[in-house]
Amino acid sequence: MLTTGGCPKTMLSIRDALEALEGKWKLLILFSLSAGPKRFRQIGKEVTGITDKALSKELKSLEMNRLIKREVHDTFPPTVEYSITAHGMSLEKVMEELHYWGLAHRKTIFEK
Amino acid sequence: MLTTGGCPKTMLSIRDALEALEGKWKLLILFSLSAGPKRFRQIGKEVTGITDKALSKELKSLEMNRLIKREVHDTFPPTVEYSITAHGMSLEKVMEELHYWGLAHRKTIFEK
Repeated sequence: MLTTGGCPKTMLSIRDALEALEGKWKLLILFSLSAGPKRFRQIGKEVTGITDKALSKELKSLEMNRLIKREVHDTFPPTVEYSITAHGMSLEKVMEELHYWGLAHRKTIFEK
Repeated sequence: MLTTGGCPKTMLSIRDALEALEGKWKLLILFSLSAGPKRFRQIGKEVTGITDKALSKELKSLEMNRLIKREVHDTFPPTVEYSITAHGMSLEKVMEELHYWGLAHRKTIFEK
């Protein structure tokens, strides 16, 4: 596993990543936004089970970590849209690997 | 992002993965075990900051998800060792991508 199996320095960068992505919602929100910019309600509808309070908190944390951008449009009434940044998009491979692993995990756990 | 950007079915498998790996400790414990079987104390030492209570809880959850194996050796006194399973090892690519992304994230956040 990795050429650096157990290496403390590699563990540090994995820890950095996990801290930025902590919890079960952030990657799901990013995945939802990876299809295009969305409004608060749309995200909440796609990420099934998240409460408004949690979504609001997660969006703030994602913005702070420069993974998403919040834009206020000058419409009447004003509308707010969230979009994924290039840095957020750089999680593509992580999400892809999690997707494949999630499929395999379901098989291992539920079919045995 | 993915060819399936935002696809509900892909979101389900990412959700499965995140549920099995929830929290900031599980992947770090697996990474520590990826270098070889270890005893409780050794893992606790390598995964800096984890309490005994949290480590004990996480090990149980990892075992339930078939990601690690707990073995009791017939020594005097008996010793317990934890090792990563093949299913746990299948997280190699996820950990690798998180490692690379963690490095990039540190640069983005701390150097700008």
